[in-house]
Amino acid sequence: MRAFLDGKLQALQALPVDLRDVAAALRNYLLRGGKRLRGALLIAGHQAAGGRPEAALDASIGVELLHGYLLIHDDFMDQDDVRRGGPTLHRALGGDHLGASLALLCGSLCESWAYQLLGPGAPLAARTVEQVIAGQMADLRGPRGRELSAREILEVQRAKTGTYTFELPLHLGATLAAAPQVLLDALSAYARPLGVAFQIADDLLGTFGAAEVTGKPNAGDLREGKWTLLVARALESAAKKDADRLRSQLGKADADVEELRGILRRSGAEASARADAERLCDDALRALDSPAVPEHVADDLRAIARYSVHRAL
Amino acid sequence: MRAFLDGKLQALQALPVDLRDVAAALRNYLLRGGKRLRGALLIAGHQAAGGRPEAALDASIGVELLHGYLLIHDDFMDQDDVRRGGPTLHRALGGDHLGASLALLCGSLCESWAYQLLGPGAPLAARTVEQVIAGQMADLRGPRGRELSAREILEVQRAKTGTYTFELPLHLGATLAAAPQVLLDALSAYARPLGVAFQIADDLLGTFGAAEVTGKPNAGDLREGKWTLLVARALESAAKKDADRLRSQLGKADADVEELRGILRRSGAEASARADAERLCDDALRALDSPAVPEHVADDLRAIARYSVHRAL
Repeated sequence: MRAFLDGKLQALQALPVDLRDVAAALRNYLLRGGKRLRGALLIAGHQAAGGRPEAALDASIGVELLHGYLLIHDDFMDQDDVRRGGPTLHRALGGDHLGASLALLCGSLCESWAYQLLGPGAPLAARTVEQVIAGQMADLRGPRGRELSAREILEVQRAKTGTYTFELPLHLGATLAAAPQVLLDALSAYARPLGVAFQIADDLLGTFGAAEVTGKPNAGDLREGKWTLLVARALESAAKKDADRLRSQLGKADADVEELRGILRRSGAEASARADAERLCDDALRALDSPAVPEHVADDLRAIARYSVHRAL
Repeated sequence: MRAFLDGKLQALQALPVDLRDVAAALRNYLLRGGKRLRGALLIAGHQAAGGRPEAALDASIGVELLHGYLLIHDDFMDQDDVRRGGPTLHRALGGDHLGASLALLCGSLCESWAYQLLGPGAPLAARTVEQVIAGQMADLRGPRGRELSAREILEVQRAKTGTYTFELPLHLGATLAAAPQVLLDALSAYARPLGVAFQIADDLLGTFGAAEVTGKPNAGDLREGKWTLLVARALESAAKKDADRLRSQLGKADADVEELRGILRRSGAEASARADAERLCDDALRALDSPAVPEHVADDLRAIARYSVHRAL
């Protein structure tokens, strides 16, 4: 990835305008941490179908760059300042309209690189990106004056990350090695519940996690007023006094985070989210018993599932 | 295109958040005018390689949507208010940060649709988009305190629109019908000079054109201080007094447009731009004499070349 990036960023300097600072900021953003989960999944999917890891290297860089594109654009839209323990790209580039525009273009560059690297997998990736964008639109627009139910939040989350994080890279890798349908089905049976579990774990981390683990401000979700499954469940099941308090404090920059966390705990929302994530993770692990998945790949996918969900539990 | 859009925008309503106004604004933006030049070129390229027009219909919608994506994002970055005789999309959606974010997402949706419709042509399109974005970065950043020469401006313009408007759609259509290399080369020999001629014609229109023709404010380029080939040539060849005056007035919202137009005329910049566009258009027309290009397709491409350049001359 580093070598690919350096080649592309070098080519950017051929134009008669100095873009070195933009290239350096993008490089730093992309290479600074990140779990590289999607690249690892793509290679696992490729190996499951009998492919050699080297043959999937370009595509695995492609999914990581696709993710970089979505993060850069999301950071601007959500007006976030921090990502992976450093500044978001629009902040690093000055934070004004020009900086934001250059950051958005950097994101779009990553995307154009991704579609080049994904080759024949590009249209499949584009279908999934379409869903992610629709989910992000729904997320940004919000319910406009009414409250979303837990069921509705799951629907938006399923659009936004349901197939994107796990199923897409696995299928991209597997189809690159001409996987049979039975393998694609087994990978889906693993990826879909895990996608939901991952999202729940992410909500738990954003609400209860420490800043050192998340690379984002502590309890950011509560102070930003993010409409998570945890919040919807608490509003549905908490005592009226607690629900009213949560409603009035959510999204306030000076909210008492410990108090709100207490409400989420008392209402049972936290425990039920943890139980859901565990159950969905177990469903995913069970799908790996399929004879279509080679044992050494199943081992890798088990480790990925446990890591993805348990870091939050 | 209308039917495809309606299907996709309908699917957007499946989420439990009301996005009807966003869908309507995007639909209006995309279906309001536009020359559909790229779609027509894609079909011409396909027919040149012996393909049936129906088989290229999806891909031709794809290049038009790819163009829609770039326009929507450019309009936001350039902070333009008007496009094709109506509001730009970020303006139509409220003009604030939320409206801009939703507009950017609409653009990205168009792009994801485009890559789906382009199918095996997606990676080729992504390579060209990479160049367009690099050119847009250079354009936005600008030369930072020094003046770009006419040659340097041509370089940035070549990145930004050189292969994008003509060569990309022709090649996408032709490769979809398994065109031989000799045909691809003939199409490039037509497309490349025409791409530069088209850009020069666009500068002429943006500087001397009437608002009724361009769908944008009259002489917008001069008042926005856009660094065009016309301006660079005038600064290189005008009398010192004229050059200083142009330098000091360019980009002022209350600049005397007729005075600046007079300077561009007196310096010879306008005449030399028109002569260049004519010459490049002739080069493009001559490339169509190649026996690799079927005569009925050459006729269509001649008409497109004349229309693209002469609307400004």
